[in-house]
Amino acid sequence: MTKQAEDKSLQKLANLQRQHKDLINLMPLQTGGMLTEAAKKALIEFGDGYSVCDFCQGILCNISNPPIQEFVHKILPEFLGCEIATMTHGARESIFMVMHSLVSPGDSIIVDSTRHYTTVVAAERVGLNIIEVPNSGYPEFRIDVNEYVPLIKNNAPKLVLLTNPDGNYGNISDARRLGEIAQEYEVPYIVNGAYSVGRMPISMAEIGADFIVGSGHKSMASSGPCGVLGMKKKWEEIVLRRSKTYPKKEVELLGCTLRGTPLITLMASFPYVKERINHWDEQVSKAQWFSSELEGLGFKQLGEKPHRHDLLHFEAPLFYDISQRVREKGYFLYKELKERGIWGLQPGVTKAFKLSTFAADRYQLAIVLDAFKSILRKYS
Amino acid sequence: MTKQAEDKSLQKLANLQRQHKDLINLMPLQTGGMLTEAAKKALIEFGDGYSVCDFCQGILCNISNPPIQEFVHKILPEFLGCEIATMTHGARESIFMVMHSLVSPGDSIIVDSTRHYTTVVAAERVGLNIIEVPNSGYPEFRIDVNEYVPLIKNNAPKLVLLTNPDGNYGNISDARRLGEIAQEYEVPYIVNGAYSVGRMPISMAEIGADFIVGSGHKSMASSGPCGVLGMKKKWEEIVLRRSKTYPKKEVELLGCTLRGTPLITLMASFPYVKERINHWDEQVSKAQWFSSELEGLGFKQLGEKPHRHDLLHFEAPLFYDISQRVREKGYFLYKELKERGIWGLQPGVTKAFKLSTFAADRYQLAIVLDAFKSILRKYS
Repeated sequence: MTKQAEDKSLQKLANLQRQHKDLINLMPLQTGGMLTEAAKKALIEFGDGYSVCDFCQGILCNISNPPIQEFVHKILPEFLGCEIATMTHGARESIFMVMHSLVSPGDSIIVDSTRHYTTVVAAERVGLNIIEVPNSGYPEFRIDVNEYVPLIKNNAPKLVLLTNPDGNYGNISDARRLGEIAQEYEVPYIVNGAYSVGRMPISMAEIGADFIVGSGHKSMASSGPCGVLGMKKKWEEIVLRRSKTYPKKEVELLGCTLRGTPLITLMASFPYVKERINHWDEQVSKAQWFSSELEGLGFKQLGEKPHRHDLLHFEAPLFYDISQRVREKGYFLYKELKERGIWGLQPGVTKAFKLSTFAADRYQLAIVLDAFKSILRKYS
Repeated sequence: MTKQAEDKSLQKLANLQRQHKDLINLMPLQTGGMLTEAAKKALIEFGDGYSVCDFCQGILCNISNPPIQEFVHKILPEFLGCEIATMTHGARESIFMVMHSLVSPGDSIIVDSTRHYTTVVAAERVGLNIIEVPNSGYPEFRIDVNEYVPLIKNNAPKLVLLTNPDGNYGNISDARRLGEIAQEYEVPYIVNGAYSVGRMPISMAEIGADFIVGSGHKSMASSGPCGVLGMKKKWEEIVLRRSKTYPKKEVELLGCTLRGTPLITLMASFPYVKERINHWDEQVSKAQWFSSELEGLGFKQLGEKPHRHDLLHFEAPLFYDISQRVREKGYFLYKELKERGIWGLQPGVTKAFKLSTFAADRYQLAIVLDAFKSILRKYS
């Protein structure tokens, strides 16, 4: 780089700004991760590197000031319906930790075919053989958890995983039935709740799972990267095994994981998150209403119906047709929505789109519906 | 928990405060991680979960808005003196990634005996055999890198590691000589620069290493958790290998690593960090001055002399004697310093203490020296 180009780049770094900050947010990755005012305050209070560690005595999750210990060892297990909880860098890192602790390279695991890509990548990092339970295909893509049974019988898996809901269609599967199956066949069972923990009521114990995974930045009103992992007590000695050389340090956590701001935002937002899951039925009816309105405009909702989650996936042939004849191609939609104060559909994509109704209220969603109508009219 | 106890706990979470925020900070873990004003602004701007990912096209480090791509692929490699760089959750996670990619369970690696505990835990997580290069022992604890040679000859290690400086004594070893040795014996060489990258000039290429690791929260004015990893191009296909199923996704990063606020603070602070390393000689002379003043008061500096880093370790028999006869035991020192506006010595510890002169200026360090004198006087 020339000196001049470098100066320009450095100047840009010192003044980073986010274009979408104050728009109506429909981005599935973001609607459950928006900070509370308490979290914003905590972010500045503990922004400096390692400032959560002032009173560390060797174990991050045992720090009493700020009250990480009480949060991780009392409040969080109760919330997750588990016996033991810990902090991680995210849902994917939680899943990797469990795989790496329980399953040996070459062994098989069984997962739903609507799993997040990181489940596959985590398994690849450990060297595992992944077997996928098929889904019902277009248009609902449902998982029937009974289909785990023959695969378990034939493959002696070391772990089964269910993504609930899945992140692509927002389908909710019968996690509890899979809990019975896993117990019957004595296979450890992990629920990926990246889009449920913090949005809706979910309990590892009620499901009958061995592990539950949540995402702070996706669904617990936290900064990224941030995750939680809950488990039955019987797995503690395996997944949270201590170092032989440093008996205070947990090997899978490399001593400590989330030593900073994401943890502090998770904690600061938690009282709000704990309360908001009580209003899940309102979220579901809002999503269903929005979906039926969009269908009335000619979009087709994929995934299960009636829908039971705020993650929605629509086919949009009308938008795709427009993208074929405008200069901006698929980006016309991003541009049109942004001009109307709306953000969250993947820029450039029009054939089908995902969105989440979690953060917007009905008034804002009505604005979104009007925007869709007005865009369709403009290009008709 | 009773309802009442729970309400109290939740209330505490919604109002998290840091006691040490505005004190003179001597905490070795923290003095290099204090945020710039630009980083504080960016923290709020991108505080919401996953808000750095607005324009992601599948690879975190290729996002152009905010300019992560330019930062990770141009600016950072130049800064680290490497060909390829990536973002991680921290120095320990960088080291684990390299070990996990290059070394098989049961293989040996050689590390300095002043390594951070996480080097041992990361090796344990991969299942490696660790061989340590001895140090010179009390009082300097120096590493002579020539002592790697016989150990390399006898053990055919798959990796050598040097912690430079070490985090306990702040000793700087001859990293460049070890580069020659590693090249001669064709062993991959990783430098743990958690306390150098972002504080002082350091270049992987000049050292002749294969990998360099840095810590955002420890030494690059960032929120935690946050790290960088630089490497020679020849290691890219191994350490940053792509998933067979998802060709955009790097396996060791589980797709993406630092998807949030710590990355954004690292970027926002970077122009300042890049500039501050030019003043390293002033940092060193400040540390030497402070050390000689403390020695004048009867404390004994451990580690190499003259010292070449802001991390300082002192034996403090005078404080220890006091701790034996006061009610607060070792905590008297924490309390006395805090009352004088000073923070950073491990609470409860008096026999020896570590501190860092990096963040405090000479005026503030004079206040610290006066405080030490006044405490000694008070209890004499």
